[in-house]
Amino acid sequence: MIGRLNHVAIAVPDLDAAIAIYRDTLDAEVSEVVPQPEHGVNTVFVVLPNTKVELLGVLGTDSPIAKFLERNPEGGIHHICYEVEDIRAARDRLLAAGARVLGSGEPRIGAHGKPVLFLHPKDFLGTLVELEQA
Amino acid sequence: MIGRLNHVAIAVPDLDAAIAIYRDTLDAEVSEVVPQPEHGVNTVFVVLPNTKVELLGVLGTDSPIAKFLERNPEGGIHHICYEVEDIRAARDRLLAAGARVLGSGEPRIGAHGKPVLFLHPKDFLGTLVELEQA
Repeated sequence: MIGRLNHVAIAVPDLDAAIAIYRDTLDAEVSEVVPQPEHGVNTVFVVLPNTKVELLGVLGTDSPIAKFLERNPEGGIHHICYEVEDIRAARDRLLAAGARVLGSGEPRIGAHGKPVLFLHPKDFLGTLVELEQA
Repeated sequence: MIGRLNHVAIAVPDLDAAIAIYRDTLDAEVSEVVPQPEHGVNTVFVVLPNTKVELLGVLGTDSPIAKFLERNPEGGIHHICYEVEDIRAARDRLLAAGARVLGSGEPRIGAHGKPVLFLHPKDFLGTLVELEQA
């Protein structure tokens, strides 16, 4: 069911500092800052040859990463995203297996303009898993 | 400097349960268990089309993931590994930039038989970063 690793997302307290770490210290290709007001984050993409890392900074007063950053003030890996061919088929299979899908269970349009769902970390080894329709 | 994302490592309290989640629930290709006694872990590789996820279970009484699992009893993402062409050149550049390398600073032979180093999470956005010579 799961295909490519689409991205690893790292929530960071200071996006400019994070950009400097990946662009200057680790010498990677880093995108411009892309505000995602509907998701409450500013995003920066670190482009690697086989996948990408997304740096997530808080945007606005109700950001979904704010609580994570309270618990992890230096930042940390927030989620991993796997691609699936058919997100509703994947969801139905996961629900049938007893796994929990966050929110309403209906896919939302994610930061890349594609349908996404998030799975409950307690059902996936303490990791927040995003599924994105490829 | 950094190249491909070699793997994302997830430390897990119960490797058999973790295998079942990735093999059966997420329908991914999962390797046999590979004991790495010199690293204090049992490893299982989840083979994705563009990279891999490594599931790490405790092996022995002095496992480097034991404390992490005390803090994260359900498991969690333990580190991410980026490939570099020349690990000593990468280390020297990082040290010159003020980043901290864990341990002696000399590369060790990692779980894939290649030289690896770990970087201090406090210098890399709260994430433990492994560098592996490609």
